[in-house]
Amino acid sequence: MATRLEKDTMGVVEVPEGAYYGAQTQRAVANFPISGLKPHHALVRSTVRIKKCAAQANMTTGRLDAEVGGAIVKAADEVLSGALADQFVVDPFQAGAGTSHNMNVNEVLANRAAELLGGKQGDYSRVNPNDHVNMAQSTNDVFPTAMRLAALELAEQTMTELAGLSAAFEQKGKEFDGILKSGRTHLQDAVPIRLGQEFAAYGKAIGNNRAGIERALPALRELGIGGTAVGTGLNAEEAFIDLIVQGLARETGQEVNRGGNLVERMQNMDPFVALSSTLKGTALNLIRIANDLRLLSSGPRTGLGEINLPAMQPGSSIMPGKVNPVMPEVTTMVCFQVVGADLTVAMAAQAGQLELNVMMPVIAFNTLFSLEILKNVVHQFTTLCVAGISANEEHCRNYLDQSVGLATVLAPSIGYAAAAEVAKESARTGKSIRQVILESGILTEAELDQVLAPFPLTTPGVHGKG
Amino acid sequence: MATRLEKDTMGVVEVPEGAYYGAQTQRAVANFPISGLKPHHALVRSTVRIKKCAAQANMTTGRLDAEVGGAIVKAADEVLSGALADQFVVDPFQAGAGTSHNMNVNEVLANRAAELLGGKQGDYSRVNPNDHVNMAQSTNDVFPTAMRLAALELAEQTMTELAGLSAAFEQKGKEFDGILKSGRTHLQDAVPIRLGQEFAAYGKAIGNNRAGIERALPALRELGIGGTAVGTGLNAEEAFIDLIVQGLARETGQEVNRGGNLVERMQNMDPFVALSSTLKGTALNLIRIANDLRLLSSGPRTGLGEINLPAMQPGSSIMPGKVNPVMPEVTTMVCFQVVGADLTVAMAAQAGQLELNVMMPVIAFNTLFSLEILKNVVHQFTTLCVAGISANEEHCRNYLDQSVGLATVLAPSIGYAAAAEVAKESARTGKSIRQVILESGILTEAELDQVLAPFPLTTPGVHGKG
Amino acid sequence: MATRLEKDTMGVVEVPEGAYYGAQTQRAVANFPISGLKPHHALVRSTVRIKKCAAQANMTTGRLDAEVGGAIVKAADEVLSGALADQFVVDPFQAGAGTSHNMNVNEVLANRAAELLGGKQGDYSRVNPNDHVNMAQSTNDVFPTAMRLAALELAEQTMTELAGLSAAFEQKGKEFDGILKSGRTHLQDAVPIRLGQEFAAYGKAIGNNRAGIERALPALRELGIGGTAVGTGLNAEEAFIDLIVQGLARETGQEVNRGGNLVERMQNMDPFVALSSTLKGTALNLIRIANDLRLLSSGPRTGLGEINLPAMQPGSSIMPGKVNPVMPEVTTMVCFQVVGADLTVAMAAQAGQLELNVMMPVIAFNTLFSLEILKNVVHQFTTLCVAGISANEEHCRNYLDQSVGLATVLAPSIGYAAAAEVAKESARTGKSIRQVILESGILTEAELDQVLAPFPLTTPGVHGKG
Amino acid sequence: MATRLEKDTMGVVEVPEGAYYGAQTQRAVANFPISGLKPHHALVRSTVRIKKCAAQANMTTGRLDAEVGGAIVKAADEVLSGALADQFVVDPFQAGAGTSHNMNVNEVLANRAAELLGGKQGDYSRVNPNDHVNMAQSTNDVFPTAMRLAALELAEQTMTELAGLSAAFEQKGKEFDGILKSGRTHLQDAVPIRLGQEFAAYGKAIGNNRAGIERALPALRELGIGGTAVGTGLNAEEAFIDLIVQGLARETGQEVNRGGNLVERMQNMDPFVALSSTLKGTALNLIRIANDLRLLSSGPRTGLGEINLPAMQPGSSIMPGKVNPVMPEVTTMVCFQVVGADLTVAMAAQAGQLELNVMMPVIAFNTLFSLEILKNVVHQFTTLCVAGISANEEHCRNYLDQSVGLATVLAPSIGYAAAAEVAKESARTGKSIRQVILESGILTEAELDQVLAPFPLTTPGVHGKG
Repeated sequence: MATRLEKDTMGVVEVPEGAYYGAQTQRAVANFPISGLKPHHALVRSTVRIKKCAAQANMTTGRLDAEVGGAIVKAADEVLSGALADQFVVDPFQAGAGTSHNMNVNEVLANRAAELLGGKQGDYSRVNPNDHVNMAQSTNDVFPTAMRLAALELAEQTMTELAGLSAAFEQKGKEFDGILKSGRTHLQDAVPIRLGQEFAAYGKAIGNNRAGIERALPALRELGIGGTAVGTGLNAEEAFIDLIVQGLARETGQEVNRGGNLVERMQNMDPFVALSSTLKGTALNLIRIANDLRLLSSGPRTGLGEINLPAMQPGSSIMPGKVNPVMPEVTTMVCFQVVGADLTVAMAAQAGQLELNVMMPVIAFNTLFSLEILKNVVHQFTTLCVAGISANEEHCRNYLDQSVGLATVLAPSIGYAAAAEVAKESARTGKSIRQVILESGILTEAELDQVLAPFPLTTPGVHGKG
Repeated sequence: MATRLEKDTMGVVEVPEGAYYGAQTQRAVANFPISGLKPHHALVRSTVRIKKCAAQANMTTGRLDAEVGGAIVKAADEVLSGALADQFVVDPFQAGAGTSHNMNVNEVLANRAAELLGGKQGDYSRVNPNDHVNMAQSTNDVFPTAMRLAALELAEQTMTELAGLSAAFEQKGKEFDGILKSGRTHLQDAVPIRLGQEFAAYGKAIGNNRAGIERALPALRELGIGGTAVGTGLNAEEAFIDLIVQGLARETGQEVNRGGNLVERMQNMDPFVALSSTLKGTALNLIRIANDLRLLSSGPRTGLGEINLPAMQPGSSIMPGKVNPVMPEVTTMVCFQVVGADLTVAMAAQAGQLELNVMMPVIAFNTLFSLEILKNVVHQFTTLCVAGISANEEHCRNYLDQSVGLATVLAPSIGYAAAAEVAKESARTGKSIRQVILESGILTEAELDQVLAPFPLTTPGVHGKG
Repeated sequence: MATRLEKDTMGVVEVPEGAYYGAQTQRAVANFPISGLKPHHALVRSTVRIKKCAAQANMTTGRLDAEVGGAIVKAADEVLSGALADQFVVDPFQAGAGTSHNMNVNEVLANRAAELLGGKQGDYSRVNPNDHVNMAQSTNDVFPTAMRLAALELAEQTMTELAGLSAAFEQKGKEFDGILKSGRTHLQDAVPIRLGQEFAAYGKAIGNNRAGIERALPALRELGIGGTAVGTGLNAEEAFIDLIVQGLARETGQEVNRGGNLVERMQNMDPFVALSSTLKGTALNLIRIANDLRLLSSGPRTGLGEINLPAMQPGSSIMPGKVNPVMPEVTTMVCFQVVGADLTVAMAAQAGQLELNVMMPVIAFNTLFSLEILKNVVHQFTTLCVAGISANEEHCRNYLDQSVGLATVLAPSIGYAAAAEVAKESARTGKSIRQVILESGILTEAELDQVLAPFPLTTPGVHGKG
Repeated sequence: MATRLEKDTMGVVEVPEGAYYGAQTQRAVANFPISGLKPHHALVRSTVRIKKCAAQANMTTGRLDAEVGGAIVKAADEVLSGALADQFVVDPFQAGAGTSHNMNVNEVLANRAAELLGGKQGDYSRVNPNDHVNMAQSTNDVFPTAMRLAALELAEQTMTELAGLSAAFEQKGKEFDGILKSGRTHLQDAVPIRLGQEFAAYGKAIGNNRAGIERALPALRELGIGGTAVGTGLNAEEAFIDLIVQGLARETGQEVNRGGNLVERMQNMDPFVALSSTLKGTALNLIRIANDLRLLSSGPRTGLGEINLPAMQPGSSIMPGKVNPVMPEVTTMVCFQVVGADLTVAMAAQAGQLELNVMMPVIAFNTLFSLEILKNVVHQFTTLCVAGISANEEHCRNYLDQSVGLATVLAPSIGYAAAAEVAKESARTGKSIRQVILESGILTEAELDQVLAPFPLTTPGVHGKG
């Protein structure tokens, strides 16, 4: 491979001919051949936006030459439009604090800006990655700010998908509101419930999770940019800080702000822990609900069979005609990943030392990966599964009629102990609760019809008292 | 041991003579000899409050005889005043959903109420644990409601302690605001910072965590009581539900409410996941900060020695005169416990099935244990450690003067690459940055005095530009 | 409360009159009012054994006066026989490395030994906690050694219970070996299996977990005692090290040894991580199996109902006659606790620094708590649940006859695609696979009887080929 | 994009023209656009090996036509040689149990085999993915077997890297064996130790972790292939099972075997939990050791500075001349990932239900990802960091001379309390322990020289007794 020689503060490095990145990126490529993965595009884009707004701010304060600054802004806009996407090459598992990621962006923009000004790749005399592109910044404030911006962008998409899922469940809640069935607690016969009540509750739960994610966002909007190396703002003027924050607000459409304490914003990863925790909470609910759907749709002959999930693909390489609940399954697997990622974020967050948490790259990787896969799987789960669920009404009703849990209805009138005798008689003989009551003469058929009328049993109230 | 015979729906049980609990509690004692622990008193108290308010509500709706109801209320008040504390005997690791805990409370109150009405222990003809004490309730709505009330009570205490810790750090932030030192990133020399800035940031971080806990409380205030067995409210009238919620608001002083969807409130443990996540987040920050304190106070001769922690106890059984940072250490250990407990809560939350999450007891145990130990350790950490920290100002200043990070100050004027040469020269020769600059003639002594005046270096701005 | 005054290297402390512990324990009681819990008796006992064997070794090497040493040994033996159990009062959440625990034991034995020699409590002139009881030891080698010995003791008990559970499942495997049922994968109809095969597999899985725990024990048997303060053995003679290890082998009946590298044995908590990981692995399998049992026993009317679990207690405070799978439930909850505890152990293990991991107390607490509750719950699960499970053979057989999974049997002869058509026809019409085949004329009734003879279908082989 | 039409048991699907995969793969691509990742090449390769050995076994038993079987084997060999690598396109987050992955391999091999026999893509009349490539197999036994083989392959590479790291540490242990320093416990001055002892202990710890991984491998070598759909072996003859296991042993060079209980091998993911746990344990030790290296190399002026790590790249975008411990940092981040992945594996393992654990794909993804990144990072850490560490001997020695921990040496002769007075005097006055002793007259200079001769203090024994 043809290379060019570049020099950084540690010496000479061979960089691939034609690369827009430079020596420090190349060192990182050599140092960190770990996962083979590339940075999430939202993280690249956010970092590039910071560089663009920094150049604009530095031009406004007069610290950066307008020609150089203009070229940096133009280069940034090109990248934001999709150019040079293959030039961001540092593994997400990299140097502490994301220095290599920051320098990758600095170098690409410097080289492209120089090119725009008529220079050539690797000549940093006109546009320098550190002195110009990184002016008034440090990896230590750029990287966490880029993480915040990327997380905000993806979180909104994830919330949109969750809102869609919540709405799909609520829609099913209405559709199934007339379908009576036996409730189950401890997986044992319990009192009546409507299938629609179950689905409405799922919708509510997911809606709550969506709202929980939203509550985690304000802390991410406190950017911390301007803190530079240790949060004190050395080499960044007050005016610069205000300008770059305003610029980022404009550029991203997010109501971002400086953050009250830049030192704290730099060392404290809690905003990411909090966001990740809400993703974990969402995942736990999704696991639970996906498990319920798999259980309710189990069968066709040997399971509960109360609902049908849309058939998405042949389910087995050996068992012909088998159809599996693949969407709840993949959703669950993604959720397990999110729960594990939350632990990684937690471990990394507690590992901060003094002015900085150098573990930011692994926090960024996991937060963005979780948001990405959660967003995608929720979309598939909603559209390819939940929206198409149908109910087996008759099957539900049969379970209801047979449920031993119906004995509960008697307890207010005849007492818990006597009602338990009815339940035990039903269990022993295989007769329905209705039948046992009728045979016992406790209630007449007319009374029973009133007492066991199922719809009222799924609403508050003591029934059959009169 | 002398016993009396009791009968429940499954048969006859021997109960210790004199016990206020009865057959079902005794079965649970026999079934669950797991940890040897007893329920947290806040959980017992909350459950008893539910029973009291239920009796009052049932008397108001006319469903419960005033004499029986009055006796239940009186028995409950006795327990709330501290009586019969040794009668709550079921292991926290117990039957799913907390049925045994609920029945323990039902039986103790029934026996004591019967006694108050002139009856004797074990005779449930007048006051029945199920029919009267548990009237219009199910374990399935009582237990999660009791968990919520107990968590709210303890969470407020924990938040109070965190506010105290935050204030103690902020106080130190002011006290140490004039103490200049070298910042450290990656544990390597970085640019100047003031010790007070570090401590103020700790105060801010803990304050944020306290606020995060507060944001988790509204979801806990949606009680779910009244849902009874599956969340539909069977055997609980609408009026009862409103009355018991009002009663609990009065009794606890918390702004509790019914909750919008009782089915969802029953099956969804997310409010506890969310609370536990904020405790985890708090723990992670405390670990980080405690680690910093241990590092900054390391020594006395072989460490950084920038601060001194109060000496609390001899540190070693073999090394005479050794004093260890025992408060940060125990704080860290408690925090590890809280992080582990959060995982247990998460595992349990995802294990809900259909109408109910039977894993509630282990969620209750871990949530309350975490709140309890966190509250206690934060109190000790604040009063016995943070409040008494002193600074070694001269030591801090010496580090500052020697720090290679000072080369950063030069970068805006001479460029990153040239400044790096200064830093490398300093590292190579052991000379201070100041000395290297002076010898190089880059700046005069007067200029240097101005450029390297340390206080401005800890605030935003490009220094020594003029 | 009456007190006596004691003096340690930091000053004067008031100790309760009559306490066998002294100043340093009292400081710890005041410093660490965290959980209200006391140390696990196995940890106390192990520490006392170390003190006994140390005194014997020190007498043998001639460093410890025989009268003093003899009194220490006698005091230790008294404690090992159950005396003074209430004198070990330091919270498990305590000073780093367990110094307070070690000093608690040192002080109790010193005071009791002094008393045996005619002295009185608080007078350490004859028997000194540091100089005599702790002679040639440091908390840093005593505490991890005590942890190892306690873990070994409890682990063997836990393994015994797991062996019992494995045997109970295998016994059921034999008992149910003739019961044919439909297998289920993805909770969907699959090919035939015998109930006994399922239970035998559970027995095998638990047996594997038991063996996994056993493989973790050799690392715990490398004691590390003799390393003293930093693992180098300062103040402990070679002869002492050999003697105390031999003593502990004799005293505990465990094949313990010195450990090859005492420095490593001190700083590396991996033996506990490894043990805890095997407990976690066991817990995960138990969760899975307990879930299966809950699913297979679901009903009585609205579930799968293939097996019956013994009824242990009334299942509901509101639903009369309900019986819940309480033993699988409590087992699952304990297992969630064990999984969370494993994370706490992991967090603590990575937090070691240089010569020591000061987080040992929280590792000890969680390891021993997990072993304790796992041992207890497995015993209850085995005896009160698994051993009493019965099968609903007819129900199982009905599922088998209806299972759409039977179409798989046809695939080798008519091909996957054609067999899928049969399965789809069965699903569409509600007819059994047998009926569809008969009607289609693919096979005669005689051929079908041969092909679908269920027992062979649960063993390797291609059936009905001829 | 040009497409061809294919038909599977659920209908017609458009497949990209030229694709070697078919309808079911294409459905999976549409269903699972989750992470954008592709399967690990080791998993693809292992699956292909299973197909190859299955074809060979089926030819031997006479069930598979030699021409068809031969073509499958040839197609498999082509893929194993690197061909068609871009045809394995299903996201790792996919259908439960890995059906889509299995069908992807079945389809690619069927199409290529058909092509080799003169057919064309999409025509399965001659070579059918289900009937021929998947003959006598099910996803349910193929996928876990492929996971096992892939894990074995990568685990050996990871162990090799760990052996290299262990050796590098041991080498440094020898190199630094003469360098005396002060030990530190609780980050406070402790008794002397040699730098070489610390590094030898690291080597020992990592060696133990490597051995732990090895102990997890035998369970993975019990393959479970032959169990087909539910572990009973339906549609797989005994002879086939033995033949394919022998084939895989030959093909992989691993001592694999059938596994004693195929039902258990299918439902129980514990072998992966156990392997993952050992990776987690390794990660925890690496975190600890990497932290130690970062602490010992902290500086150059404001840290401990006892060792120097090789400089790998400029450390800061803003601080010129800064060099950071990037290799320990990236190692730590990878280890946090491994710890999180272990939790994902654990969650997935407990989620198995009845005959199958459908969560296998997420277990596979995390296990292989952890092995991959751990292997890679350990290689970099060893070669680019540990192997090049140098010591600052003088700095170490200075710490030793000043350490207050030296007072411990006096304790055996003058008692713990008196020695504590010496330590306190040293701490109060800033004088060294040596100086305080000399001034106090406790020992003469000659005695002191003997007592405090540092090398013996780093070995077992009571010094200066005579």
